[in-house]
Amino acid sequence: MPDNYISSVQNHKIKKLLLLQQKSSERRHEGLFVVEGKREIAHCVEGGYQFDSVFCCPDYMDEEALELVRGFDGGVKRFEVSKEVYERIAYRGSTEGMIAEVRMRNSTLDKLQLGEHPLIVVLERVEKPGNLGAVLRSADAAGADAVIVCDPLTDLYNPNLIRSSIGAIFTVPCVASTSEECITFLKDHGIRILTAQLQDSSLYYDTDMTTPTAIVMGTESTGLTTQWRDAADAHIRIPMLGRLDSLNVSVSAAILLFEAVHQRQG
Amino acid sequence: MPDNYISSVQNHKIKKLLLLQQKSSERRHEGLFVVEGKREIAHCVEGGYQFDSVFCCPDYMDEEALELVRGFDGGVKRFEVSKEVYERIAYRGSTEGMIAEVRMRNSTLDKLQLGEHPLIVVLERVEKPGNLGAVLRSADAAGADAVIVCDPLTDLYNPNLIRSSIGAIFTVPCVASTSEECITFLKDHGIRILTAQLQDSSLYYDTDMTTPTAIVMGTESTGLTTQWRDAADAHIRIPMLGRLDSLNVSVSAAILLFEAVHQRQG
Repeated sequence: MPDNYISSVQNHKIKKLLLLQQKSSERRHEGLFVVEGKREIAHCVEGGYQFDSVFCCPDYMDEEALELVRGFDGGVKRFEVSKEVYERIAYRGSTEGMIAEVRMRNSTLDKLQLGEHPLIVVLERVEKPGNLGAVLRSADAAGADAVIVCDPLTDLYNPNLIRSSIGAIFTVPCVASTSEECITFLKDHGIRILTAQLQDSSLYYDTDMTTPTAIVMGTESTGLTTQWRDAADAHIRIPMLGRLDSLNVSVSAAILLFEAVHQRQG
Repeated sequence: MPDNYISSVQNHKIKKLLLLQQKSSERRHEGLFVVEGKREIAHCVEGGYQFDSVFCCPDYMDEEALELVRGFDGGVKRFEVSKEVYERIAYRGSTEGMIAEVRMRNSTLDKLQLGEHPLIVVLERVEKPGNLGAVLRSADAAGADAVIVCDPLTDLYNPNLIRSSIGAIFTVPCVASTSEECITFLKDHGIRILTAQLQDSSLYYDTDMTTPTAIVMGTESTGLTTQWRDAADAHIRIPMLGRLDSLNVSVSAAILLFEAVHQRQG
């Protein structure tokens, strides 16, 4: 099946793959990113991404994984790697046995396709790739139209992001922009801006989310900037009834998104 | 301030601390567990836990951390450690500078103090300490009365659990039991059992949660056992509107808990 067998971690293809995993500058320069695991690769295929190369280790592959690789067209370069090489390049000590290099797609706000009553999540200055990935997973579950990341401090193709999203980065449209562009975009499209903030806010379940809605959240440590607070149509909060003072951002996103789901289906 | 200064990672106190972090058998044997970080230690103090020892590295401590340590009574052994030692024992490369050994408390179901309309989370066979910690954080925010872990595959004092709970393990009563004991306990106390499951279930927001309620969840991979499905008063589900087929368990817990909060406050 494979064109080439790689048994050395010194192989230049392997060195390049490791660089793509580790450095966002390398990803930008090559226009490629790395996807690991059956589920994630399957969602990436579904999302219509263009695959450049796939590295397989048959020792770790089950029938489902083999089937997935057989589905790639002739334009995708295939490499079989030894167990030793696979263990060097794989994050998970799993039995999935496949890692791919995929071509980036740079989405922009103007390319977003929105439904009639859009439901959007906006994250300002998100820093931890794992948090953004988890938010994407919540956004997928709630059927959100898009996640927009404003002034992000991580790139959208970070391996931790892809992993924690378990592939939702490929199923939910995700766009990076500046806060200014995003505010203009939302206002131009008649989408109400609801900012999640503790001060000067209403309980989220007392707020109408049946009209086109963007739920905007800041970082756990510093919250939202005044630029967003000032741009808001309403400020909303989740009541904090315990001793701690914050929820994980993906948990907050899910609570707010499913309130919109409830209101829209109710 | 400290009784003793430790500058070698070979010191027997340091070796014991590392063992307590790494091995649940060591924790059980010593009756001690390890807490790292200002916020977590502060919540542990608030929770009335008995501290055995505290290891401080002044290079990393701010005024708040120093204040916290000054608050310990004379019965707590204090050690000052070098930067090199601290970096060996600390998980986070943070500036918090404090790690403590704390005495375990083995709570049991019969010691749980419940309010008039209890709201409880039950997790069956939870495996990942990070998931249990994140559920505790959601439970704290929703003001839940307790988290009960049935037939757990992790111990309640795993360092990853404490870390991901950001201290909620000390603010929310958490008890381990068998599923059988837990079902008997809930039925004896007139607490309705709502099991989260996709098959044969109603939408969660169409289910009454104003009466005493236990929300019961299984693992992401295998769900709940039939023992729990059969014991349920109602089966509930969160609608999955995207392409992925599951939510993180702490996210699901938060969506269901905050529905109860909403119904009870509404």
